[in-house]
Amino acid sequence: MRDFNEQTITDAVISQFKAEDPRLQQILTSLVKHLHDFIRDVEPTEEEWFKGIQYLTDVGHMCDENRQEFVLLSDTLGVSILVDAINHRADAGMTETTVLGPFHTPHAKPMTHGAQIASAEELAKGTPTVVRGQVTDPDGKPIAGAKVDVWQASSEGLYDVQMGHGEADLRGIFETDADGKFWFRSIKPVAYPIPFDGPVGKMLVATGRHPYRPAHIHYMISAPGYETLITHVFVSGDEYLDSDAVFAVKDSLVADFVAVEDAEAAKQFGYSAPFYEVEFNFGLKPTA
Amino acid sequence: MRDFNEQTITDAVISQFKAEDPRLQQILTSLVKHLHDFIRDVEPTEEEWFKGIQYLTDVGHMCDENRQEFVLLSDTLGVSILVDAINHRADAGMTETTVLGPFHTPHAKPMTHGAQIASAEELAKGTPTVVRGQVTDPDGKPIAGAKVDVWQASSEGLYDVQMGHGEADLRGIFETDADGKFWFRSIKPVAYPIPFDGPVGKMLVATGRHPYRPAHIHYMISAPGYETLITHVFVSGDEYLDSDAVFAVKDSLVADFVAVEDAEAAKQFGYSAPFYEVEFNFGLKPTA
Repeated sequence: MRDFNEQTITDAVISQFKAEDPRLQQILTSLVKHLHDFIRDVEPTEEEWFKGIQYLTDVGHMCDENRQEFVLLSDTLGVSILVDAINHRADAGMTETTVLGPFHTPHAKPMTHGAQIASAEELAKGTPTVVRGQVTDPDGKPIAGAKVDVWQASSEGLYDVQMGHGEADLRGIFETDADGKFWFRSIKPVAYPIPFDGPVGKMLVATGRHPYRPAHIHYMISAPGYETLITHVFVSGDEYLDSDAVFAVKDSLVADFVAVEDAEAAKQFGYSAPFYEVEFNFGLKPTA
Repeated sequence: MRDFNEQTITDAVISQFKAEDPRLQQILTSLVKHLHDFIRDVEPTEEEWFKGIQYLTDVGHMCDENRQEFVLLSDTLGVSILVDAINHRADAGMTETTVLGPFHTPHAKPMTHGAQIASAEELAKGTPTVVRGQVTDPDGKPIAGAKVDVWQASSEGLYDVQMGHGEADLRGIFETDADGKFWFRSIKPVAYPIPFDGPVGKMLVATGRHPYRPAHIHYMISAPGYETLITHVFVSGDEYLDSDAVFAVKDSLVADFVAVEDAEAAKQFGYSAPFYEVEFNFGLKPTA
């Protein structure tokens, strides 16, 4: 096993893999084939190859407990949404999925219906909003007791973990009632850039791409007997719906955030007019 | 630009790239095509995808100024030797190239012919060896004044940068004489494992591969008017010549290290018998 040329090296490497786990064997075999095909296609100079090594190293060094630059790279190269599409081939009555993103945390607190998920500081800076939803099975039958984990960015486009104060903010966990319903108060989400002060941001600049994501609220909804639904609800009319930096928009996930001018209505939520209202219904997929 | 499916996502991502640098545009376009093909081929679960993200993150975190885990990953997946093969299509009279490896440093000192490149401590632990070489053009014409940068592992299979003492050892820089020749004293190289205490080692274990490289001396040889030659000279008879963990062995680079029993001969090198002698001639490729 020596003297490989540009073609024979691929089978030589694959022949060395003798994984006990057949799935690992399959994944590495496919990885080496596609990786070598990529190299043969672009024929990198040694300087280009080393730039690639350095780029991956920089991406790795950017990762810490609050920042997952490889997830951002996967997102911005369309890999995350492709993996999502492969794993969630949705049928009628089931809500389409989209990317998890890097900002879900286990720190959201259980809250009661109508709770305000924004801190007083973030609420004061944002546009008051009332969010309602219902969780059903594919036939429209309500699912009671579903766990609805929500999170979103601030009016400045930052998630709590990016603010550096260590407090959970703009996230919460709700449980659906007997009608499968839940509601909470928050602020209207705004479009924001993904973190672009690292290697992924450099890639976006070098390729003439903007880092913006259209405004959205994240949902992770789980209930016994159903697959966990990870999705967003996007704000209709957002200027970035057709150029999301992570390719995650689906028409079925875009909802109208309706302005309410009624002062009396606002008052019952502790808001002053105008405020926004949005409603979205979620269909869960039964587990196989 | 929304509502992508498993097939349309690839062109959607590529259509977003508008790099000013046409080479970058070409490389990223090819990368996304091959990366998405790989994903569609193996259809990773979300858990597998995240394991991949975590693996790349671990590789990145293993990298520091003395350790380049992404180079090791590239080496053990046969990518480095493929890039080498693409960039150095050797013709008659030119020495074949092989991988640089992660242990070249800029700390080697210029030395005079016959110098001992091993420290007293490493010499005492190793097998004394005399190394000779000649550098020529493809027609066999000697190249005087070529810079010959050599480095190798200790008798325990460690490069100086792995020993942690911060001193250059088992490396040196020589200049060829009027006949294109150089020589130095050292120890006989031994087979050694690539660093396997990190993510790359885990991959090798999981796939039933050993981490060993057959014994070799590294050379980087440069001269005005010629391409820099990066190669190894391997020790004939080594048990790992046919299963090099980084796929870098070429028959033309294997040399006999000849045992010399003559006590008088040993004495002239400050050695006691037996010691080893090896000679290898290098043909450089003229720059285009």
